[in-house]
Amino acid sequence: MRQVGSVLWPRLQVLQVYGANTGVGKTIFSSILCRVFQRHFPKVYYLKPVSTGPQEEADDRHISTLSQNIKAKCLYQFSDPVSPHIAARSSKESVTDESIRATVHDELNSYATDENGIAIVETAGGVMSPAPSGNSQADLYRPFRLPVLLVGDHQLGGISTTISAWESLHVRGYDVQSVALFSESRYDNHSYLKDYFAERDVHAFSVPPPPERHSNGAEDARAMQEYYEEAASSSSVVTFSSQLLQNHDKRIADLQSMSAEAVEAIWHPFMQHSERSKDTITAIDSAYGDYFATHTTQQALIVSQNPTTSLIKPAFDASASWWTQGLGHGNPRLALTAAHAAGRYGHVMFASAVHEPALRLAQTLLTNMGNPRLAKVFYTDNGSAGMEVAVKMGIRAAAARNGWSADDDIVILGLKGSYHGDTMGTMDCSEPSIYNKKEPWYTGRGHWLDFPQVKMRKGRWVVESPDELNNSLEGEKTFDSLDDIFDFQKRTDDYAAYKQHCDATLAELIEKGTKFGALVMEPILLGAGGMMFADPLFQRCLVDSVRHHASLAIEMQPQHDGSLDWTGMPVICDEIFTGLYRLGRFSASSFLGVDADIVANAKLLTGGVLPLCTTTASQAIFDAFVSEDKTDALLHGHSYTAHPVGCSAANESLRSMMKMEREGVWDGFKGHWSSSDNSLTLSSPDRQAGGAWSMWSEAFIKAVSHRSQVDSVFALGSVLAITLKDPDGKSYASKAAYEMRDKLLAGAPGEEWVIHSRVLGNVWYAMAAMTTTRETIESLEEKIFAALE
Amino acid sequence: MRQVGSVLWPRLQVLQVYGANTGVGKTIFSSILCRVFQRHFPKVYYLKPVSTGPQEEADDRHISTLSQNIKAKCLYQFSDPVSPHIAARSSKESVTDESIRATVHDELNSYATDENGIAIVETAGGVMSPAPSGNSQADLYRPFRLPVLLVGDHQLGGISTTISAWESLHVRGYDVQSVALFSESRYDNHSYLKDYFAERDVHAFSVPPPPERHSNGAEDARAMQEYYEEAASSSSVVTFSSQLLQNHDKRIADLQSMSAEAVEAIWHPFMQHSERSKDTITAIDSAYGDYFATHTTQQALIVSQNPTTSLIKPAFDASASWWTQGLGHGNPRLALTAAHAAGRYGHVMFASAVHEPALRLAQTLLTNMGNPRLAKVFYTDNGSAGMEVAVKMGIRAAAARNGWSADDDIVILGLKGSYHGDTMGTMDCSEPSIYNKKEPWYTGRGHWLDFPQVKMRKGRWVVESPDELNNSLEGEKTFDSLDDIFDFQKRTDDYAAYKQHCDATLAELIEKGTKFGALVMEPILLGAGGMMFADPLFQRCLVDSVRHHASLAIEMQPQHDGSLDWTGMPVICDEIFTGLYRLGRFSASSFLGVDADIVANAKLLTGGVLPLCTTTASQAIFDAFVSEDKTDALLHGHSYTAHPVGCSAANESLRSMMKMEREGVWDGFKGHWSSSDNSLTLSSPDRQAGGAWSMWSEAFIKAVSHRSQVDSVFALGSVLAITLKDPDGKSYASKAAYEMRDKLLAGAPGEEWVIHSRVLGNVWYAMAAMTTTRETIESLEEKIFAALE
Repeated sequence: MRQVGSVLWPRLQVLQVYGANTGVGKTIFSSILCRVFQRHFPKVYYLKPVSTGPQEEADDRHISTLSQNIKAKCLYQFSDPVSPHIAARSSKESVTDESIRATVHDELNSYATDENGIAIVETAGGVMSPAPSGNSQADLYRPFRLPVLLVGDHQLGGISTTISAWESLHVRGYDVQSVALFSESRYDNHSYLKDYFAERDVHAFSVPPPPERHSNGAEDARAMQEYYEEAASSSSVVTFSSQLLQNHDKRIADLQSMSAEAVEAIWHPFMQHSERSKDTITAIDSAYGDYFATHTTQQALIVSQNPTTSLIKPAFDASASWWTQGLGHGNPRLALTAAHAAGRYGHVMFASAVHEPALRLAQTLLTNMGNPRLAKVFYTDNGSAGMEVAVKMGIRAAAARNGWSADDDIVILGLKGSYHGDTMGTMDCSEPSIYNKKEPWYTGRGHWLDFPQVKMRKGRWVVESPDELNNSLEGEKTFDSLDDIFDFQKRTDDYAAYKQHCDATLAELIEKGTKFGALVMEPILLGAGGMMFADPLFQRCLVDSVRHHASLAIEMQPQHDGSLDWTGMPVICDEIFTGLYRLGRFSASSFLGVDADIVANAKLLTGGVLPLCTTTASQAIFDAFVSEDKTDALLHGHSYTAHPVGCSAANESLRSMMKMEREGVWDGFKGHWSSSDNSLTLSSPDRQAGGAWSMWSEAFIKAVSHRSQVDSVFALGSVLAITLKDPDGKSYASKAAYEMRDKLLAGAPGEEWVIHSRVLGNVWYAMAAMTTTRETIESLEEKIFAALE
Repeated sequence: MRQVGSVLWPRLQVLQVYGANTGVGKTIFSSILCRVFQRHFPKVYYLKPVSTGPQEEADDRHISTLSQNIKAKCLYQFSDPVSPHIAARSSKESVTDESIRATVHDELNSYATDENGIAIVETAGGVMSPAPSGNSQADLYRPFRLPVLLVGDHQLGGISTTISAWESLHVRGYDVQSVALFSESRYDNHSYLKDYFAERDVHAFSVPPPPERHSNGAEDARAMQEYYEEAASSSSVVTFSSQLLQNHDKRIADLQSMSAEAVEAIWHPFMQHSERSKDTITAIDSAYGDYFATHTTQQALIVSQNPTTSLIKPAFDASASWWTQGLGHGNPRLALTAAHAAGRYGHVMFASAVHEPALRLAQTLLTNMGNPRLAKVFYTDNGSAGMEVAVKMGIRAAAARNGWSADDDIVILGLKGSYHGDTMGTMDCSEPSIYNKKEPWYTGRGHWLDFPQVKMRKGRWVVESPDELNNSLEGEKTFDSLDDIFDFQKRTDDYAAYKQHCDATLAELIEKGTKFGALVMEPILLGAGGMMFADPLFQRCLVDSVRHHASLAIEMQPQHDGSLDWTGMPVICDEIFTGLYRLGRFSASSFLGVDADIVANAKLLTGGVLPLCTTTASQAIFDAFVSEDKTDALLHGHSYTAHPVGCSAANESLRSMMKMEREGVWDGFKGHWSSSDNSLTLSSPDRQAGGAWSMWSEAFIKAVSHRSQVDSVFALGSVLAITLKDPDGKSYASKAAYEMRDKLLAGAPGEEWVIHSRVLGNVWYAMAAMTTTRETIESLEEKIFAALE
């Protein structure tokens, strides 16, 4: 699969020329620039990717006549003199954005030689004029992130069209280096715009308009040559040209020094800095869709050996930027939505107040979680803070009902390997581990159960039970399909065994006087603790057990029994990572058929653009904090609680993902998953339809599971996790997966794009955005499979 | 002072007509709409606020000829047919944005009668065309936040100009209800745009273009009448018109039900919900500059009695939205900056990576903090998480140096009434109080000192010492000016007394075996703990004491002594609230002449648009985490660590505020402050120049301090805090300041704007943005002073 992105060749400078409107003189400015560039560069290229109208009138022809030293070219010429999206309709050729980008990339790449060169890429129409695909010019070319000259509009009304065009480029992450327009004394747009853009650190300049056209062609050509010559010598054009060269050099220098500067100024998260050097830090120039545009020491080395290579390389963002990405990097709709909220509100305080984005988001969550218990939404800024709130809610509610005082030692019930955040309250929810053992203030406040895990091993789905359950479940159980694992009705024996174990454990702990404030768990997938796929039946059973632990019944407990109050202890589902479609569903606890009392969501909530977290609670939990005493309240709040920018981005993200689900955008992925009953709807009665599926194909994970260095593998929703055999048996401290990570980031020689990933000990994992295509996944599967050879 | 903002009259609907470009037919669409509106409304108004060109050709004249039932008016007519900003230059009248807004508001307000009416406000030129002041149309009218009809461009290139114009409105928080344009078969812009906007939930429609002009005037008029009649009856126009009416009703219904819906769906921060009802929740429609656009039950009541009143009222945001606001709400530059970063990156993972916005922000902080110790910047999402990191850094460094293990009981040294956040680790840094006493997991881990406070009482600056210091300082000390309090060189006796007290206390605690991991304090101002102004000399002395507690010297210790390592214990300055110009300076600890080892910044960091926090540490602190063992690292990180949108907003905010400081924007405020030596530069040698000043005038706080119900008052930077006498003596639990808050929110009858504030027990406080004008402050001072009568 072709994937071209941001480019930066050391010896080929590229300038993209956009117009604030049609007919503002893009080609004339390109001609002037070609002329001035000829003075500095042995090679000057002019590229018009798409042109409409008769070939003999085309812009590249015009440019070619200027000088024989300028190589001018048009890649897609449509004879109909209308907008490209209309012209393309009558053309036989199907011209997609991807094909245009690939062709432009390859053309530019062919200019990147040992000799210094410069290329002008002239767009068609205005910045938002349609490309052949119907997409806008600005969106079509955005992945390249070329420096831009915006040709402003000198006509009446041109101040407005120029500024708006600049804003459209700016919100798409473009670096607009300069704005140029014809000076025109009547409207004087250029004077206004020079000041306007100077305030925004954008250089604007003007040149006189070209002479009126002569009826005599030769005369006309001569007059134009004179005009070009004069304009190219004007101080403003010369200044622009020299600034452009400086900016190119500066961009390269900045990109190459960023990693070293980061080593100086930054304290990186989750890093032992003895392992840090400029060579281990990836500089991210920008990002687009599924890809980072990266620069690394290794890339610098390749370029130093071969200066025709771009300094920037696309790298698939396989950690989905720490599990946050849902709708692709640099998504213009999310950018505009965020800006709209920033323009409408900025931030507005949420204490005793309400605003539309926060209210609508709360309502959307309550409506779509499919959990009748949930009634109230509390906002925080990130998952860790949101889980602190969840735990405060749970243990305070339990304390109130049980008559425990603040001096009582209240703990949580959890699973081993859980992870809920890095602030102290959430750290205390995890059992002692290398994450927390050196924190003086860490105090594990809980009891943590081991649990059976789902894995594909040597082509078979297995549920592997830990030692403490072994007596009743005898190690590893095999299943024909993933769906079978989720088909609780068929697993009554497993349920009975789990139930006995959970009931017995719980009874013993409570007997000892343990005061449980809440059950806290990540449904299905324990993320940061090592990407473990918990047997959903075990988690379900644990919930049944805590909610009915006095009962000896081993029948599965109905969850939608009409009761909205908690029993036993409040159940907190940490869906920060697993919720909101990461595993293919809006609600991750729906896989368990569990209605939690408290649910935390973050990461994908904003589609991957901004931090925001919600903690959603049942009315019963909420009511535990209501009294006449102010100090009974949940006295928690952050300055930016429910910030409108985040809430708006979340509304837009959820709307998009819910629409994708409704429209069956992921059906193509589901087709790559077998199901025991050949249907995607599972038979477990109290779960939402949808089955268990992944964007990674079952055939692929089967194949991976047979690889010799692979211990096991699984995939669910957008998540893929490969556990590598670890000769030292060190799990998190292990470096077994590092090699795989490094291999994928380096890529094969000449490979167009590579894979940027993170590992968790001996687990190498990857996840996609919800917008990642099947084609991309297939390419990834190939690369990953190859890396396991 | 006039302050007009968002308006929503129950019986007057207002539509604003913007153009994607000049000459796209705004007036023709307005005419068509006037005609269709006449069928539904007894009163139809057409308002052209600003017009250029001969009066007899003006748009309002044109509209008037259509029908006698339409009241058409132009407010500012410039005869020169050029852009308003040029025409205004040759006019005698100075036309500011404020005056245009006030005139437009008053004109529209006069239309808001008992009879149903509709008004069209037609702008001049395109959306970003300059107003007389030179500001853009879209920015000029933004405060009203009127629903918009954008007239699109049907000409060649019009797809681009229309979309860009819509984006310019969208990023300014406008609700663009529809896009209308002439249908034109050659370019077919309308077909493309209908689909484009439908995908964005914006209704777009088209009507045929008007007939060619006749040379015969009467014939022309007849043809146009026919055209208007036909267009007004077309289904698309009729649909638009009925949607518009529905939207108006829906907007009112939504605004009126928001508070009740919030009560259903939201769990508010820091609130005892027994006190919550729809009547206590303020609905915030939007915000602009210093003001919220609010709707309250009280306002609904006023409107129900007098439907000529707007449902929305401007309210000065006196809590600066929980202390976050720096550059005004809805700031278009911050909105565009945020969108640029979202378009360039979205979010990109920060583990082992670097991107430009995060690197530049770190460098800016390190360069401008004026603290040579600081070397490394760690990113988190909010102040609470950032302080967790600060404390982890401090106590881990102390433990490492002192050889303490994780089992040792390490505590912090702090001040009473401190507040560092709501996550458990930061809660543990505060002494037991009503904030935390009911949290089962709260464990106060520290020793907290009482401290002398600065207050103005009865017109005199005093430093009031608590009982535990009384022996040496004897209660209350009086000073001639605030500067005198900051003039440490003149306060050698106080220093000696403080030093003895601090040294003795510390010696005693250490003697007892207390293991101090860090000194944690908010420099100068203890915010959430109750807005207490700590004597800066005491805080300075405390730092000297912990850093040199073996020494008996009572000389002030030099801070810039070349040593960058910590001694005694790491000093953590929590500048989340007080830093980055809140108190008038980039660094709040610079007031103390203290170079902290760790500094946390948030709130104002992004100018008040998004959550982001930085924890900046010295190299010595950083080095304590570097080893060959991965588990020695600071294993802390959030998914959105160093999110580019936040970092970019912060870069833009800091650049703006630093520029304001450089350009002396706040000099006007400084002039209202006396200084003992008539100079704004203080004599204390190791502090930055700038003195102590406030945006609130000294004369005002003096006057306030004499009010009978006022105990004391102070102001520093943008912060004003008034401690009211509390007959019950209950401080936080007290309701003494509630009455003041409610009075200011209700406002006097007919008052154009009111004050929205938060209180802390018996402290009523207010703060301004760094962009708030002296004129606004004066109006606030008047209202506040009056409320104290």
